[in-house]
Amino acid sequence: MLVIMRDHASREEVQHVVDLLEEAGAQAHLSGGEVKTIIGVIGDREVVYSLELEGLPGVEEVIRVLKPYKLVSRDFKPEDSVVRVGPHASVGGGAIAVIAGPCSVESEEQMVSVAASVKAVGATMLRGGAYKPRTSPYAFQGLGLEGLKMMRTAADEHELPVVTEVLDVRDAETVAEWADVLQVGARNMQNFMMLDELGRMGKPVLLKRGLSATIEEVLSAAEYVLKGGNRDLILCERGIRTFETYTRNTLDLAGVAALRQLTHVPVIVDPSHATGRRDLVDVMCRAGIVAGADGIMVEVHPDPEHAKCDGPQSLTPEAFGELMESVRPLLELMDVRLGWD
Amino acid sequence: MLVIMRDHASREEVQHVVDLLEEAGAQAHLSGGEVKTIIGVIGDREVVYSLELEGLPGVEEVIRVLKPYKLVSRDFKPEDSVVRVGPHASVGGGAIAVIAGPCSVESEEQMVSVAASVKAVGATMLRGGAYKPRTSPYAFQGLGLEGLKMMRTAADEHELPVVTEVLDVRDAETVAEWADVLQVGARNMQNFMMLDELGRMGKPVLLKRGLSATIEEVLSAAEYVLKGGNRDLILCERGIRTFETYTRNTLDLAGVAALRQLTHVPVIVDPSHATGRRDLVDVMCRAGIVAGADGIMVEVHPDPEHAKCDGPQSLTPEAFGELMESVRPLLELMDVRLGWD
Amino acid sequence: MLVIMRDHASREEVQHVVDLLEEAGAQAHLSGGEVKTIIGVIGDREVVYSLELEGLPGVEEVIRVLKPYKLVSRDFKPEDSVVRVGPHASVGGGAIAVIAGPCSVESEEQMVSVAASVKAVGATMLRGGAYKPRTSPYAFQGLGLEGLKMMRTAADEHELPVVTEVLDVRDAETVAEWADVLQVGARNMQNFMMLDELGRMGKPVLLKRGLSATIEEVLSAAEYVLKGGNRDLILCERGIRTFETYTRNTLDLAGVAALRQLTHVPVIVDPSHATGRRDLVDVMCRAGIVAGADGIMVEVHPDPEHAKCDGPQSLTPEAFGELMESVRPLLELMDVRLGWD
Amino acid sequence: MLVIMRDHASREEVQHVVDLLEEAGAQAHLSGGEVKTIIGVIGDREVVYSLELEGLPGVEEVIRVLKPYKLVSRDFKPEDSVVRVGPHASVGGGAIAVIAGPCSVESEEQMVSVAASVKAVGATMLRGGAYKPRTSPYAFQGLGLEGLKMMRTAADEHELPVVTEVLDVRDAETVAEWADVLQVGARNMQNFMMLDELGRMGKPVLLKRGLSATIEEVLSAAEYVLKGGNRDLILCERGIRTFETYTRNTLDLAGVAALRQLTHVPVIVDPSHATGRRDLVDVMCRAGIVAGADGIMVEVHPDPEHAKCDGPQSLTPEAFGELMESVRPLLELMDVRLGWD
Repeated sequence: MLVIMRDHASREEVQHVVDLLEEAGAQAHLSGGEVKTIIGVIGDREVVYSLELEGLPGVEEVIRVLKPYKLVSRDFKPEDSVVRVGPHASVGGGAIAVIAGPCSVESEEQMVSVAASVKAVGATMLRGGAYKPRTSPYAFQGLGLEGLKMMRTAADEHELPVVTEVLDVRDAETVAEWADVLQVGARNMQNFMMLDELGRMGKPVLLKRGLSATIEEVLSAAEYVLKGGNRDLILCERGIRTFETYTRNTLDLAGVAALRQLTHVPVIVDPSHATGRRDLVDVMCRAGIVAGADGIMVEVHPDPEHAKCDGPQSLTPEAFGELMESVRPLLELMDVRLGWD
Repeated sequence: MLVIMRDHASREEVQHVVDLLEEAGAQAHLSGGEVKTIIGVIGDREVVYSLELEGLPGVEEVIRVLKPYKLVSRDFKPEDSVVRVGPHASVGGGAIAVIAGPCSVESEEQMVSVAASVKAVGATMLRGGAYKPRTSPYAFQGLGLEGLKMMRTAADEHELPVVTEVLDVRDAETVAEWADVLQVGARNMQNFMMLDELGRMGKPVLLKRGLSATIEEVLSAAEYVLKGGNRDLILCERGIRTFETYTRNTLDLAGVAALRQLTHVPVIVDPSHATGRRDLVDVMCRAGIVAGADGIMVEVHPDPEHAKCDGPQSLTPEAFGELMESVRPLLELMDVRLGWD
Repeated sequence: MLVIMRDHASREEVQHVVDLLEEAGAQAHLSGGEVKTIIGVIGDREVVYSLELEGLPGVEEVIRVLKPYKLVSRDFKPEDSVVRVGPHASVGGGAIAVIAGPCSVESEEQMVSVAASVKAVGATMLRGGAYKPRTSPYAFQGLGLEGLKMMRTAADEHELPVVTEVLDVRDAETVAEWADVLQVGARNMQNFMMLDELGRMGKPVLLKRGLSATIEEVLSAAEYVLKGGNRDLILCERGIRTFETYTRNTLDLAGVAALRQLTHVPVIVDPSHATGRRDLVDVMCRAGIVAGADGIMVEVHPDPEHAKCDGPQSLTPEAFGELMESVRPLLELMDVRLGWD
Repeated sequence: MLVIMRDHASREEVQHVVDLLEEAGAQAHLSGGEVKTIIGVIGDREVVYSLELEGLPGVEEVIRVLKPYKLVSRDFKPEDSVVRVGPHASVGGGAIAVIAGPCSVESEEQMVSVAASVKAVGATMLRGGAYKPRTSPYAFQGLGLEGLKMMRTAADEHELPVVTEVLDVRDAETVAEWADVLQVGARNMQNFMMLDELGRMGKPVLLKRGLSATIEEVLSAAEYVLKGGNRDLILCERGIRTFETYTRNTLDLAGVAALRQLTHVPVIVDPSHATGRRDLVDVMCRAGIVAGADGIMVEVHPDPEHAKCDGPQSLTPEAFGELMESVRPLLELMDVRLGWD
């Protein structure tokens, strides 16, 4: 940690900071030129973190050199983590996940139909929402447990693992019983109690980036899951909130490339939610793969016009098939493969 | 709802939208000029909301004229709501709340000391965190139930109601047992399951605006609480996330003024979290009051330099006393009063 | 300047950075613990600034401790600067500017009418646009030189100084001939050639914050003007661009308070452009004053319904009169005065 | 245009809007249900645009259905525009531009060296800054006319066209004399007078997206250039400003894909400025191409460690060669080609 003092800070101000540091068991090293004094701090990570020196007289800025995460870092584990999902699917280390399905589970027929069609063209996991986070309390909130069962039936029939969101920490056990991957939605990325709980469960977790979460915050949230002992984590970039309104959010593909450098945990992209526009989903899936994403998550509905949610961004099974066609040569070019078997 | 068709959309495209609308029981009214057709939609609110026509062939834009909230709106209830907290405190309708206390509860002595000093200069409620949402899993996470009890003791000794955060929906009952106002933090603003739960409890709720939540989303989140039957809701602006880094967040005071027009629910400001800088707290409290806020929330710590969290933005009791001095003439000028008795 | 090396950077990587620094004539001081090496750099400001070490092998981060501005800083000049405008008006050091007038000059009658009405209730300067920056090339672009003359006539008749925008650096001389304060619009805040030109002219300059400019960038832009020798500078906060759409922009009043701490140059607010909503202008003017602004800038039009631009945010003369009524007691409370004589 | 009235707006309020519309020569069509009245407006584009009805009593929202641009739209010209640059280069319609060179021109040797190395591996144009927009007035500002001449010499020696920024509208003629493409920087995207001037010159223009410009604003700025008669326009996405700080800006590739749908004008990407990090440039170039970009703009410096600006994001000629290697198979896959001859 570094403490930058204001120009011409007094000797008393500097000494006061040094005293507080030493009181806390840390060491202070002074340096600086004529106008500036800079205090280098060395000491125990937890202790150094608990010190909040901003706002002290004469202090201009405090710079934390140590990152607030560790287990998730590529410094800690240089090689790619590979997350196994069910008997056949995997993601990371060159295995590309293709997670497809409707925004919300509406009926068993719908799910069986989607599962069949997406499996046929190469999807490696089935997604669908049983518990839906809706901005308005008057919107459709999902079928709950019944939805989970429908999805399970459809997935088993077509040998696909199930990815679905845990909206309420109290439902985590139930969801874990019926699903293979427990998704944490963007709005819950910093629901630390839920992260903590999922970190102690034995199921793979898919953690979506919050709408205004920095990359460092994504990694800190990921650290909560790993710290609990759960090593099966997948991150997902799904668009951040900016001033642009043409797309629903701004898909941060440089963020994906950056995460791939900073962490060993696999990172996928969700262009459906990021753009909110059907006509941009396929191109952004391809761009995401080329940016280094370990997978794509795509909303597919047998009849988007009658979908109970997110119709405008859902692909038909046909369009999804075309997307998969266009993705395959890119996989080859990048020397990666679909994450199946 | 209005459906704007693309320039020169075909008759078939227009008819297809009309068919879908009528199939759903809504009425479609066509209008438009040479290049544009616009379809006005009239029908049941819930039905109209469940239709997602964006992405249909020929559709350029769908405009929802009805707001996604109702109970929270000033159209629904024109007069200010007043929330009573404990036997003496209130907020709204000209009653200004002053909620003060440390970021986190550290000891009973600390809380008793803070309660005494803030009460003495006019605070109407005591705040403190027993369960702390921390970005890093390695930071101090709060004393939990023990912290709640310490805060209760301190508050009772000085006759102040207690405001504290519910971090985990599973703790809601426990927190409700020891506190007077249940706070929902910014990171949980769209934790809809928690909002739903708190909406069905009989305690006042303080809902903080999410870091990237629009005013419409704040009101929709508020609607979740009101819909459950709980009318004792307080909103809190605590800064939104922007590109600016000098302040921790950007305090949106025009958003406060806008909320005061749009809703009857009281709205307070939290300049401590918004700015993250001790030297901006007092001035932004005053500006917030003048912008129409029904209260202020301020971090006060007997010894900010040794605070376990948010030291840099905490005021000393003395500085808080000076702040209250500077606020009083503004209250008089605006013809409002402290929300006590 | 500080260079933070990556964890476990090699001795060669560290030495390479040191070599580059010494080659440039700067001194390098190494410090750090087991995992991190940190290099403190001391040397000539210009030299240190021209070094760009980010991206070198082993370098994690480069932190510039020296600010990119100097003359504008309160460290350089602790006391408030006061800008005199014409024989009677001033801003800064307790003198509050009230700049009022229409978005665009439409006719001499309009300007005379506005000048009369705003002067009558306390405005200290007259504003109006002769050259209009319009997003669309099809929108009204202003009356140009004719507009300048109309505004001058109206201003002279009512003894008010004229504030107007220089849209094109080639017009600077012409505008300077007819106006008293040369405004740089938000879109031109980083038009460095214009700043440079205005810095060498002898007229007061009003510099608006860019829509996505940080406080540091505002101060750096200000430095361009001061560096040219022009000390008569006024800064203006007019809203930054965020994800919120209810208001046109987000008025950053904490930014105003921060600027007042960081610079001696006066800072005013423009709630008309910031909010884009007539019903929020008055309350945000008052909040701005309380936040420490040295003045307000308000759009006033004799007939907003027929205004050629910005009608929705323009006040009628009557509403402006009420605003001024509500501002006066705040001035008294804050121990400041209207900037006139 | 549509005018949405507030719930239960009075008959007088509705009639007042209708009167204003008819007075302006537009037609008003009323529709709506029990609680809402909606007024459809038909009339001349310019007239309709000049009406600003927001803020009138009873008006909730005004929706402009017509876009503020026309010539730039794909509705106006469905086929891709191809911009020819010099005798051999082109961009658009399947021709991919590769624009490479240093941030700033430092010497003739530097430019000749860069030109040779980038030409050898496939660059189609040479870039370099002679006039540099620098946030700080104390940073290197470029060599000016001398720089233009050095770049011209180097470009001619290697038969490459020159792309360089016009920083000051007064230099436009001079720059046009020495360069082949006139670049408008992000900070000048809404310098409408410069756009207007460049629109009337006969040279290709490269217009960079502003840091907080929406897609609609980019297209409106483009319209200024086309409206002047200049059809040789290239747009460039170079990152928008968001809360994320790991990358310098956020490269909006979905924005590129969207622009490709909305306009016939070619769109390129600049990952060097967008990310500000050398280690992300190559991957984002490839992702940009796959997102549909018509070209890439890359900073290349023979010795990035000694570059006078933007060293941290500049590639060495070797790294640029590797980038080109990795791009070629993507071009083939996407059935496009380098824009040369």
